[in-house]
Amino acid sequence: MRIAVTGADGFVGRAVVRELAARGIGDVLLTDRAFAAPPPFEALAGDLADPAVFARVAEADAVLHLAALPGAAAEADPAASRAVNLDLPLSLIEGMAGRRLVLASSIAVFGGRLEAPVDDVTVPTPTPTSVYGTHKRMTELAFADAVRRGAVRGLALRLPGIVARPRGAGGFGSAFLSDLFHAARAGEAYTIPVAPDATSWLLSARAVARILVDALLSDATEGAAVTLPALHVRIGTLVEALGRAGDTSGFIYAEDARLRATFGSYPPLATPRAEALGFRADADIDALIDAAFDG
Amino acid sequence: MRIAVTGADGFVGRAVVRELAARGIGDVLLTDRAFAAPPPFEALAGDLADPAVFARVAEADAVLHLAALPGAAAEADPAASRAVNLDLPLSLIEGMAGRRLVLASSIAVFGGRLEAPVDDVTVPTPTPTSVYGTHKRMTELAFADAVRRGAVRGLALRLPGIVARPRGAGGFGSAFLSDLFHAARAGEAYTIPVAPDATSWLLSARAVARILVDALLSDATEGAAVTLPALHVRIGTLVEALGRAGDTSGFIYAEDARLRATFGSYPPLATPRAEALGFRADADIDALIDAAFDG
Repeated sequence: MRIAVTGADGFVGRAVVRELAARGIGDVLLTDRAFAAPPPFEALAGDLADPAVFARVAEADAVLHLAALPGAAAEADPAASRAVNLDLPLSLIEGMAGRRLVLASSIAVFGGRLEAPVDDVTVPTPTPTSVYGTHKRMTELAFADAVRRGAVRGLALRLPGIVARPRGAGGFGSAFLSDLFHAARAGEAYTIPVAPDATSWLLSARAVARILVDALLSDATEGAAVTLPALHVRIGTLVEALGRAGDTSGFIYAEDARLRATFGSYPPLATPRAEALGFRADADIDALIDAAFDG
Repeated sequence: MRIAVTGADGFVGRAVVRELAARGIGDVLLTDRAFAAPPPFEALAGDLADPAVFARVAEADAVLHLAALPGAAAEADPAASRAVNLDLPLSLIEGMAGRRLVLASSIAVFGGRLEAPVDDVTVPTPTPTSVYGTHKRMTELAFADAVRRGAVRGLALRLPGIVARPRGAGGFGSAFLSDLFHAARAGEAYTIPVAPDATSWLLSARAVARILVDALLSDATEGAAVTLPALHVRIGTLVEALGRAGDTSGFIYAEDARLRATFGSYPPLATPRAEALGFRADADIDALIDAAFDG
């Protein structure tokens, strides 16, 4: 079976490449705009909007579509987000007719402040509150309709916060959730911008890569987007665990109300649909830290 | 103020043209693929996907976008629906930056079987169940995001069943709701494909045209789509009223389970947001019939 992965040189993409290699899977095409280092599979550097690149991807038997314009960039340039985060996946949905497509969606579809516990019947309501989340949600709807029509097979998976992203990777202010890991590993001073009782949903790159490859290789097809499992982590508990695995002696708390509201107020999460598909979060916070440090 | 109306020679479009003329509004550009008869305003016959036609529309101060590929045609050709029902309104949302746009959405976004009463907080869930409803919902989300960003002003309005559409206008099987009116007016035999206790949401073309022109001329801007008011009509009651206004002596009932489930099982509808904007359904069933016979 020929597999193609888009956005393969991104943070999640590289973890997926490691997972594919670890499983000994051979017939893989990777694409991204550029590759920082030669990957262990056939790599095609180019823009997925280039018809020649697109055609190579869309002839695979199964595609994992990770390429995206991140939240902050999408917000700054909605037209670019439409091209990358909407038009490209819509074209893949059409182009992969009769074959398998796994789309990376995002918990950004939920938008705004999540006050009640989130589970599999939580519907993004009334609408996402970012360009990125809007285009991800629109793509979810198009995918669900294509699955309903039998036009394509596969899954759309909503990724939570993945740690530890590289330093300076940007995002909407969620970077602190990854920077905590880097600072603890390096024993650096760090000002945590939320209080200890703030909460988030975290999943390691290693765990999400395992899920994404499982999704790609399985026969599971569901139209409605599946929210991935994650650890519902209290920041104070995370910092204590980071202190055991690294050095947090230079950490202080100074809460930023905006960051607390957006990235530090996640309610409990229930993901029985993902679990029924065999998708698992990191086993516990120490396993999360171990995987994040390893990434 | 320069107004443009797309889909102006369609069923709803013609009612809007009559309403604009009745109000003595002068500076109007109408577009449609073709016009069956010369309208009372400047008319541009052509495809809205043609950049020259699009540019003429998008230079108006306020645009009412009615052009659409209907449900059955959208289901038969999803790629064409994407071009007409998604890409075109998305381009209008971008092209109308800083100005006013009124989009015709549809209760098709709700999809499936509506079991509980529908009100302004009902969210299409889990997803629409047609290509047409999916693309309308995706457009609603893009519009809401553009309003959130302050990129465009206006409203997205969800139209219910509009009566009486011309005979043979197609649709997904909802045609009987209009054909009842034609048969009663002509005194023809008619087999009603749902039982008397079936229910639907109906609005006359005259009433919806009044709402659409009010929306176009107002300053109201809301990102979240507004469901229009409609009469929640029991079919048996409608047939009795049609018997007073026309001749239903040749009507018999023969329920089709599929039509009953899809177009004859509408729950109560509450639309306080539309009413706060001054949008009104037909006053009662006799007014609805009067307006529908006149259309």
